[in-house]
Amino acid sequence: MHKVVIIGGGFGGLEAAKALGKIPVEVTLLDRRNYFLFQPLLYQVATGGLSPADIAHPLRRVLRKYGNVKVYQDEVIEIEPAARIVRTRRGEYPWDTLIVAAGSTVSYYGNEMWRPFAPGLKGIEEALEIRNRVLRAFEEAEKERDPEARRAWLSFVIVGGGPTGVELAGTLGEIARDTLRGDFRNIRPEEARIFLLELAPRVLPSFPEDLSEAAELSLLRLGVRSLTGVRVTAVDSEGVEFERDGQRGRLSARTVIWAAGVQGHSLARLLHEKAGAELDRAGRVRVSPDCSLPTHPEIFVIGDMASYPDGKGGTLPALAPVAMQQGRYVARVIADRLAGRASPPFRYRDKGVLATIGRHHAVAQFGRTRFRGVLAWLLWLFVHLIYLIGFQNRILVLIQWAFHYFSYNRGARIITEQGCRPSG
Amino acid sequence: MHKVVIIGGGFGGLEAAKALGKIPVEVTLLDRRNYFLFQPLLYQVATGGLSPADIAHPLRRVLRKYGNVKVYQDEVIEIEPAARIVRTRRGEYPWDTLIVAAGSTVSYYGNEMWRPFAPGLKGIEEALEIRNRVLRAFEEAEKERDPEARRAWLSFVIVGGGPTGVELAGTLGEIARDTLRGDFRNIRPEEARIFLLELAPRVLPSFPEDLSEAAELSLLRLGVRSLTGVRVTAVDSEGVEFERDGQRGRLSARTVIWAAGVQGHSLARLLHEKAGAELDRAGRVRVSPDCSLPTHPEIFVIGDMASYPDGKGGTLPALAPVAMQQGRYVARVIADRLAGRASPPFRYRDKGVLATIGRHHAVAQFGRTRFRGVLAWLLWLFVHLIYLIGFQNRILVLIQWAFHYFSYNRGARIITEQGCRPSG
Repeated sequence: MHKVVIIGGGFGGLEAAKALGKIPVEVTLLDRRNYFLFQPLLYQVATGGLSPADIAHPLRRVLRKYGNVKVYQDEVIEIEPAARIVRTRRGEYPWDTLIVAAGSTVSYYGNEMWRPFAPGLKGIEEALEIRNRVLRAFEEAEKERDPEARRAWLSFVIVGGGPTGVELAGTLGEIARDTLRGDFRNIRPEEARIFLLELAPRVLPSFPEDLSEAAELSLLRLGVRSLTGVRVTAVDSEGVEFERDGQRGRLSARTVIWAAGVQGHSLARLLHEKAGAELDRAGRVRVSPDCSLPTHPEIFVIGDMASYPDGKGGTLPALAPVAMQQGRYVARVIADRLAGRASPPFRYRDKGVLATIGRHHAVAQFGRTRFRGVLAWLLWLFVHLIYLIGFQNRILVLIQWAFHYFSYNRGARIITEQGCRPSG
Repeated sequence: MHKVVIIGGGFGGLEAAKALGKIPVEVTLLDRRNYFLFQPLLYQVATGGLSPADIAHPLRRVLRKYGNVKVYQDEVIEIEPAARIVRTRRGEYPWDTLIVAAGSTVSYYGNEMWRPFAPGLKGIEEALEIRNRVLRAFEEAEKERDPEARRAWLSFVIVGGGPTGVELAGTLGEIARDTLRGDFRNIRPEEARIFLLELAPRVLPSFPEDLSEAAELSLLRLGVRSLTGVRVTAVDSEGVEFERDGQRGRLSARTVIWAAGVQGHSLARLLHEKAGAELDRAGRVRVSPDCSLPTHPEIFVIGDMASYPDGKGGTLPALAPVAMQQGRYVARVIADRLAGRASPPFRYRDKGVLATIGRHHAVAQFGRTRFRGVLAWLLWLFVHLIYLIGFQNRILVLIQWAFHYFSYNRGARIITEQGCRPSG
């Protein structure tokens, strides 16, 4: 039987596996995690609103009903297009068709040394690391007697004003103003300073201009100061240095979060070396109109790893709907090829963009329609609950959101050790 | 004002803080965690049934309404009875009365080298480590082609047949038989071998004999084999060695969990050196009838750290009700002393013992009344929900239990990295 190997169980890989589960092919899904992660809500794990398991779902559970799909928790270290083999830590997996859907990683634009001081929001481990740093900052401030040092603990910098940065900053604002109010004796959490730094002239640069303005206003109401046109030039344990209008500046802050950029997964470079794939500036693989490699039509690249023209001179954004549609599309292309049929090129059906800011504000764009305020926020809630996998997760998330809304509390406010070994 | 420092925010320390929050003293609660942990349900985190935040509650949230109570996340490194000071990593805390309630740690009976191969169930980090090992064992078995090696991955050993060991073993049995059924292609999870090793002649040795028998039978129905009269002589990455009836044996198992023993927190040794406290064999502090040190009546030791006579020649067990009653009791003693009143000695009101085994079996003893089966199980559910802190946590746990019960699924089946630093 025709063998398909899928690398990555994110939005793209999982949709591909589900679609291929219905046609007579042998599917192997490889992921270094044992779960699918609903990344759009990861910032809520990072800010103590949800637990990791609320937004994660075991891959083999999702795929259990597809008898022709095998799932292995394994890490790919080599792709060999000539031999049609994927090599992992544990062994080899042969394929007739390969789907690479390994996603993206955080990019520090060549400044890897900033990583320890400014974690990015990529996986569960990083989300918990950010949660620990944010909560610990308030604990340290409560103990600190020197006003200057205390101020640094109560200062938070988020680098990057895209949807993730805006959602993180808004939630931090809420935490300081509402969630922690009354919990401390020596500090007033609502005096925390939260800065959102963005290189572009406005936050949410991919949204229409009026929605950016609405977002900045909502953030300000939560105590978040947006600084735009800001280029970060250094990050260390004490804060960030930046340039703005040719002037240099410095913000003292013990907590810095990186939400500024992503790049294609390092497997893209492997495809470049081994399969002659062409990469774009963000390290993503340029693909043919059917999402395959021009040099190797039996290899598909989808989702955040792929650079696909949007028809307006740019490329499709790194969004879940793009990856999901591409996943289903390549499954259809494989079925077409097996049946000897030609396939139409991939066409993205724009589902719009959404970002939420605090308790009941959000901005949304669907084609020419724009929403803001409570309506957009309800829409945001609805869309995220619908796309979350698993009835149990939906109920649990809904209940926790209801509790946050009415009590201003967040349940997952625990600092856990991320040490090397369990302590005694 | 009279200064009280409490070390430890577990069942004992928290109850003391709440009771002292109502009288005119200045209270400082120190804990190296920022949360109270509901340890009786920790085994459900270790087996993927619940998330850590479901059974943890921020200490400062619980105590926010007591204006005279300050909470600091800090680790005690020195106690100086002469200067009446507690030294932590960050500074000094002076006291007039000290309450030491730091709990217990896992004891390997002098075989510390077993720890990396057989984690114990103490805190959230250890529970997640156990969860990772259990889930990963099935993932590795699915990849493994050698039948012998696969068998070792599908073998689980739990050392210690007390309530924790029994509850862990029962849940593992359920996971293998029900939860994972149908999720794998190359292995049958229900073929997993689960061994419960106990040194005493029966499991649950602290329970009446007929309840031990009932527990063993319930375990057997879940595929758990109880081996009693077994002394473990070695633990390594491949399994355990043991002696039984003078014969030596070996069990090959890649997953070993330690539920065999606890000892008083290392602060007990500090109290021994600095305050002349006498320790028992389990490293717990022998206390006066009012829970204070005979040598230092202004220092109280309560909960798992204290060795308190049970009036029958033994000592009170390391149970939450003992710690909670002692916490409330010492607060009353402090109030009495400030008012110049004498206090009656501490008297434990026995709340009985409970242990659950699988879906709807449990054993319980209250005074002379004994329960087993469904009734004991419902009682177990009720008692644990009542004592869990926070309405939100109660609802979340109840819903997850309902989902487990009806779907046989467990939501928190995710393997997270416990690495030193976040990966890229």
